[in-house]
Amino acid sequence: ATALAVFSSDALSSVSYATEAILTILVLGGSVALGLSLPIAAAIAGLLLIVGFSYRQTIHAYPQGGGGYIVTRDNLGDLPGLVAAGALLIDYVLTVAVSISAGVAAITSLATNWGFPTLRDHAVEIALVCILIVTIANLRGAKESGFIFSIPTYAFISGILSMIVFGIAHDLMFGADPVVHSIDPDIPPTGEVLSLWLILRAFAAGCTALTGIEAISDGVQAFKPPEARNAAITLTLMISLLVTMFLGITWLAYTHQAVPNEFTHETIVSQIARTIFGVGPLYVFIQIATALILVLAANTAFADFPRLASFLSRDRFLPRQFSSRGDRLVFSNGILVLGLCSAVLVVIFQANEIAMLPLYAVGVFTSFTLSQSGMVRRHFRRKQPGWHYSAMINGIGATLTGIVLVILMVTKFVHGAWMVITAIPILVMVFRAINQHYQRVAEQLSLSGAILPPELRRHTAIVLVSGIHRGVLPALQYARSIAPDNVTAVYVDLDPEATAKLRQRWQNWGCDIPLVVLESPYRSLINPILRYIEEVESRYGDDVITVILPEFVPARWWEHLLHNQTGLLIKTALRLRGTVVTSVPYRLAR
Amino acid sequence: ATALAVFSSDALSSVSYATEAILTILVLGGSVALGLSLPIAAAIAGLLLIVGFSYRQTIHAYPQGGGGYIVTRDNLGDLPGLVAAGALLIDYVLTVAVSISAGVAAITSLATNWGFPTLRDHAVEIALVCILIVTIANLRGAKESGFIFSIPTYAFISGILSMIVFGIAHDLMFGADPVVHSIDPDIPPTGEVLSLWLILRAFAAGCTALTGIEAISDGVQAFKPPEARNAAITLTLMISLLVTMFLGITWLAYTHQAVPNEFTHETIVSQIARTIFGVGPLYVFIQIATALILVLAANTAFADFPRLASFLSRDRFLPRQFSSRGDRLVFSNGILVLGLCSAVLVVIFQANEIAMLPLYAVGVFTSFTLSQSGMVRRHFRRKQPGWHYSAMINGIGATLTGIVLVILMVTKFVHGAWMVITAIPILVMVFRAINQHYQRVAEQLSLSGAILPPELRRHTAIVLVSGIHRGVLPALQYARSIAPDNVTAVYVDLDPEATAKLRQRWQNWGCDIPLVVLESPYRSLINPILRYIEEVESRYGDDVITVILPEFVPARWWEHLLHNQTGLLIKTALRLRGTVVTSVPYRLAR
Ligand SMILES: [K+]
Ligand SMILES: [K+]
Ligand SMILES: [K+]
Ligand SMILES: [K+]
Ligand SMILES: [K+]
Ligand SMILES: [K+]
Repeated sequence: ATALAVFSSDALSSVSYATEAILTILVLGGSVALGLSLPIAAAIAGLLLIVGFSYRQTIHAYPQGGGGYIVTRDNLGDLPGLVAAGALLIDYVLTVAVSISAGVAAITSLATNWGFPTLRDHAVEIALVCILIVTIANLRGAKESGFIFSIPTYAFISGILSMIVFGIAHDLMFGADPVVHSIDPDIPPTGEVLSLWLILRAFAAGCTALTGIEAISDGVQAFKPPEARNAAITLTLMISLLVTMFLGITWLAYTHQAVPNEFTHETIVSQIARTIFGVGPLYVFIQIATALILVLAANTAFADFPRLASFLSRDRFLPRQFSSRGDRLVFSNGILVLGLCSAVLVVIFQANEIAMLPLYAVGVFTSFTLSQSGMVRRHFRRKQPGWHYSAMINGIGATLTGIVLVILMVTKFVHGAWMVITAIPILVMVFRAINQHYQRVAEQLSLSGAILPPELRRHTAIVLVSGIHRGVLPALQYARSIAPDNVTAVYVDLDPEATAKLRQRWQNWGCDIPLVVLESPYRSLINPILRYIEEVESRYGDDVITVILPEFVPARWWEHLLHNQTGLLIKTALRLRGTVVTSVPYRLAR
Repeated sequence: ATALAVFSSDALSSVSYATEAILTILVLGGSVALGLSLPIAAAIAGLLLIVGFSYRQTIHAYPQGGGGYIVTRDNLGDLPGLVAAGALLIDYVLTVAVSISAGVAAITSLATNWGFPTLRDHAVEIALVCILIVTIANLRGAKESGFIFSIPTYAFISGILSMIVFGIAHDLMFGADPVVHSIDPDIPPTGEVLSLWLILRAFAAGCTALTGIEAISDGVQAFKPPEARNAAITLTLMISLLVTMFLGITWLAYTHQAVPNEFTHETIVSQIARTIFGVGPLYVFIQIATALILVLAANTAFADFPRLASFLSRDRFLPRQFSSRGDRLVFSNGILVLGLCSAVLVVIFQANEIAMLPLYAVGVFTSFTLSQSGMVRRHFRRKQPGWHYSAMINGIGATLTGIVLVILMVTKFVHGAWMVITAIPILVMVFRAINQHYQRVAEQLSLSGAILPPELRRHTAIVLVSGIHRGVLPALQYARSIAPDNVTAVYVDLDPEATAKLRQRWQNWGCDIPLVVLESPYRSLINPILRYIEEVESRYGDDVITVILPEFVPARWWEHLLHNQTGLLIKTALRLRGTVVTSVPYRLAR
């Protein structure tokens, strides 16, 4: 039972914005067009049933849990698998940005009806704080208590279902009151012609209702045994609830003439709930439950994103930093990247979830289509008993989601989907470049055929100094000890006055090490040093040359920012040319 | 003549938003209140004249150029100087953000009247691109050609003056037509009570007209000799132009009933210009000249900010990275910080310059008040001929700007000035912390009383390995050469399988160096290493211990991101405890 709550928050929470997404498009066709929301919602509900049915197959085929990446890569190969992975990573970022923004919208709508309309002006800040809290909670790895997690989900389901039942009953008996707006929304009197294009756009917008339904098939192994069977039952239950709530909300929005209001930014659910229940405890309950289930939905992405990233990293398509090398900080990098990316999206879109929706759903439908196609291929390969039937179901799912994907890409392209459609191939190219890199490195580091390098002959040491002070002395001593017969100190002359002073003090404190002063006609620090090292290398070709850097270590962490930036630059330049560098630290006490 | 153009763009450009700032506040009191714009503007014009007169004194006292920081620190001491510096740094950031946003508003207003109202939706993106361009131009250090710079300034002055003359003449002969709006602005019918508070707020808003007039006294040395006299003449000319244009625009706004329009976001100057000239070439000329002079105003901050930062850095109140160590990249860091901070402001305020104005002017009035007070103190100290008269002028200036500063802080506090008022003391604390740090370091590194550290006895080497491959061999050889009689290789066991494989291969490739495998019960990498080093230190107390890290150097720059993050972490940890670390790089060919 808690499994339903944990895995379905992402899917069920979508009903809080899916209807609004449809109406936002239809309203462009004037108030006449709004009636079309019902047939469009019915078409989406049909799609939901078919895709859900198709996903049952995946659950039975991958009882150990099969995300879009694994199912696709397994059955269709690397490239389609990487496309699915890129699409899913993007979709997880959008899940966080959309869900948090929609949650904030639920709260600001509540505030507006309580007489605080100005809270809406701080939507971006509130959303960023929410993302920060969820990120930190996930970084600290709070044990996910299924029980606590189930409360908002059940509260949301019961709140929305009561609203639908009570609302429809009330409407039948007394007729439906239209929503009253504090500021009237702007409905274009004639508007865009009500075209097939507009209907397709509205349908595409409503397809966000399907986002999140893949969660159960990704996490089959978390169910009680028999896992596959329980997961399939949960999936059926979830799809039924999703269809009921989505159709119910759309119906009530129609009968109560709810429309998106660009001035108050009040959500459709808030408009309906207060019209049916009045601004009382039931209304408040629904708004808070909506906000909480949306935060929960965002939270699921914080488990999914790092997991997918670690799969990709394990397969060497993402940097090793995303995979656990057994460290406690397993998923930290994935969590941080997800938190950061979603925060950037929230700022760019000013926490307006409706504006983000054109980017959403494209990724998840890409993954739907690919993984269903993968399932079809699998059935054809394995030809297990009853494979014809299963292949047909997955084939219908793949075809339908593929058609919807094309509709999504075409209708949403100029409204933002182009960003996702461009980003997916770029991500795939990055994945492949990383993979090729790791392969090249492994080949070059292989010991097969290697020979031991020759014994080292003599050491030559070069100490880089930027002056003479206590922090330099240990480095000079160290240099003398490793290369007693060939050590020089090198200084770059940027200011004749300072140079003269250094020369003079070197007599007393230079430890008898010869001081070489380099001219720098272009006032650069690094070039003269690199040129000098080259010269030394050609002179003492057989020696191993060590560059020694005195570094002082400040006592406080922030003080490091004030120092050693040049030292870092020099070390990087020397590393690139393959020179041995030794840091001799000098710790400051305070 | 070009001096006027270069130094006055910041000051003169303010007239493009100062009137609008006043009207934005007054409109809250209903359309009746709008008539108060004239007396308020007159009061601000008076203030302008007095402050300008007071600044003439500074010009004569500091012919080598005296910014607020130098004049204040010179006469009142460190702390007030730092307050002035902090206030000015913030104001430079706001100069860029406000000017660029206002420039974009001029262009989007033009676009709206050409039938492209949707350009306004991309104001943030356009503003960010402008900031990027100005930042890059300043980083590349394009020679500032006074001639090219003077074109927008003169175009702006002549455009605005013609509009004022033609407008007033036309009004006198034919009467003034009210501005026609495509969407009517929202004027509250009764609105806030027209209170003294509202009038003070409107006055405070209009004080943005004074921003930028300090530029001439900051740059006296750039004038032709006699510098002080030419600068003073230029200042007088600039103040006259500023007063004329500001009063003229406010007058025309009044007679043509121009009001800020929150729907079209059309600027007041655009409303007036198109009402007087129609949407023709003259209107286009004014809008483009306005946009260009505002970009120029932003550009001046890109010279001022890095210069002030380098003064502060020279006095050790900011990190050394901001002062020229004779490098060609003198001001790069200051330019980058300014570009970044102003870009952040533009995003936060969505390129709405009117929303940023409550933050603006607070900083510059702080600097006005402090530097004028400093001048008073100076006169009292030096008692040069005529000092009574000069002290009186500066005293009046200081008192007036001080009073206005209090008005600004009180009336604008909740509308955003609190951010500046909080940020200034924080900046001052940062300045002082940095200064104390540099002092502490200098004391601790001083050679007075130092004794040469003892000769180093024997070397102990520890090679950290994460496996055995070609990249490790040179590090093992290096370790053997510096510490032939005491070297070990250290490996942290995170995975028993990998460890067994390593032990086996070590037989062939380990160069006869003993391999120490550390257990890591908590799966951490760094803690076992640090514990081992401590143990070795206590065992071989007299030795110098060198930790040797094999590092391989990828062939492409981006590949570095995929490696050595753990190495970096280890190096940092070792540096903090004062351990000598040697990197032995192994370069990959591809
Ligand atoms: K859903
Ligand atoms: K969702
Ligand atoms: K999702
Ligand atoms: K000004
Ligand atoms: K200004
Ligand atoms: K300024």
